[in-house]
Amino acid sequence: MSNTNIKTLSPRKQEILTAAQKLFSEKGFNAASMRDVAKKLDIRPASLYSHYNSKDDILWEIAIRCANEFHQKVDPIAKLDLPIEVRLEKMITAHIYVIIKNINASAIFFQEWKHLNEPRLSEYAQSVAEYEALFRNLIQEGIQEGIFRNDLRPGFITAMILSSVNWIHQWYKPEGNMTAENIGKQAVRMILEGLYKAG
Amino acid sequence: MSNTNIKTLSPRKQEILTAAQKLFSEKGFNAASMRDVAKKLDIRPASLYSHYNSKDDILWEIAIRCANEFHQKVDPIAKLDLPIEVRLEKMITAHIYVIIKNINASAIFFQEWKHLNEPRLSEYAQSVAEYEALFRNLIQEGIQEGIFRNDLRPGFITAMILSSVNWIHQWYKPEGNMTAENIGKQAVRMILEGLYKAG
Repeated sequence: MSNTNIKTLSPRKQEILTAAQKLFSEKGFNAASMRDVAKKLDIRPASLYSHYNSKDDILWEIAIRCANEFHQKVDPIAKLDLPIEVRLEKMITAHIYVIIKNINASAIFFQEWKHLNEPRLSEYAQSVAEYEALFRNLIQEGIQEGIFRNDLRPGFITAMILSSVNWIHQWYKPEGNMTAENIGKQAVRMILEGLYKAG
Repeated sequence: MSNTNIKTLSPRKQEILTAAQKLFSEKGFNAASMRDVAKKLDIRPASLYSHYNSKDDILWEIAIRCANEFHQKVDPIAKLDLPIEVRLEKMITAHIYVIIKNINASAIFFQEWKHLNEPRLSEYAQSVAEYEALFRNLIQEGIQEGIFRNDLRPGFITAMILSSVNWIHQWYKPEGNMTAENIGKQAVRMILEGLYKAG
């Protein structure tokens, strides 16, 4: 999955995706119609259908492009020759960066993917599983090296870490002054060091 | 909100809610119809409508009962005369307990609430805000007492903590051998102490 090529979209297709992302994330995939998407773009439905055959095709393009974006930003970091905790910090920050640069798409990535049909659903699930494995393997490595605690399972820790930052798409205000790096640093401190005051 | 009385339901209404919770959490609220709910219960739609006037009414009953359940289990713990970190541990464990005892309802509580209409949506949002405030206030207290770290905002910490355990409804298998207490203890260790190995 991670090596699926993301084709560059035509400006028109990009406009359609941007409008659909906003609509699906606001109303939910089921409640939004192709007619709504066309209306938002101020084009006729027939014109929309010349770019995408169905609402399912649009959902797929949004979901898989977002999945690929996570992989493109995070996969290379996992392979860097850096201390484990530095890699984890950079991976979490990159993950948050993808979320806040793609607020509407990531809402769909997290919540509307369940409306995908087979075989796309399986392809999507595999991409997500491979993505989570990047984190889980690094945590496993950190446990073996004696850096990370060894009393919790890596899969459990991974789920807690990713969930603890995935709410950010519901809360982040692009007009605010918090950067991905800023939020990432705060989240990483809490994840690595915990809530207790040191000492 | 937290003092709204939860009326005991008739066995028939309870059956309807149980079926609707399963259906809404599997298919999503929008995709499921009153006809689907009736079919699942093997009753005629007219019979279903004699209990609930609309799908919206069923969604409301599920969402607000789930919100009340979180309050009923967690509010009293927040007031106990116990050390702050013990209260936090017990509150998180109770939160997880409510999730795993109400897997389908909590899926709706977390994901389908956005389909509520006003004024119900506002009432729901207020209940959730008051619930989150229980955690935020306790964390604020812990920061002031010098027990918890003082370099992160209590609201940010609260969102991270609750999100870090709210995925459990998607993952928990009732047939497995993990109890709420067991999962709670693991989650609390990670939240309080972090991923780094002590020492």
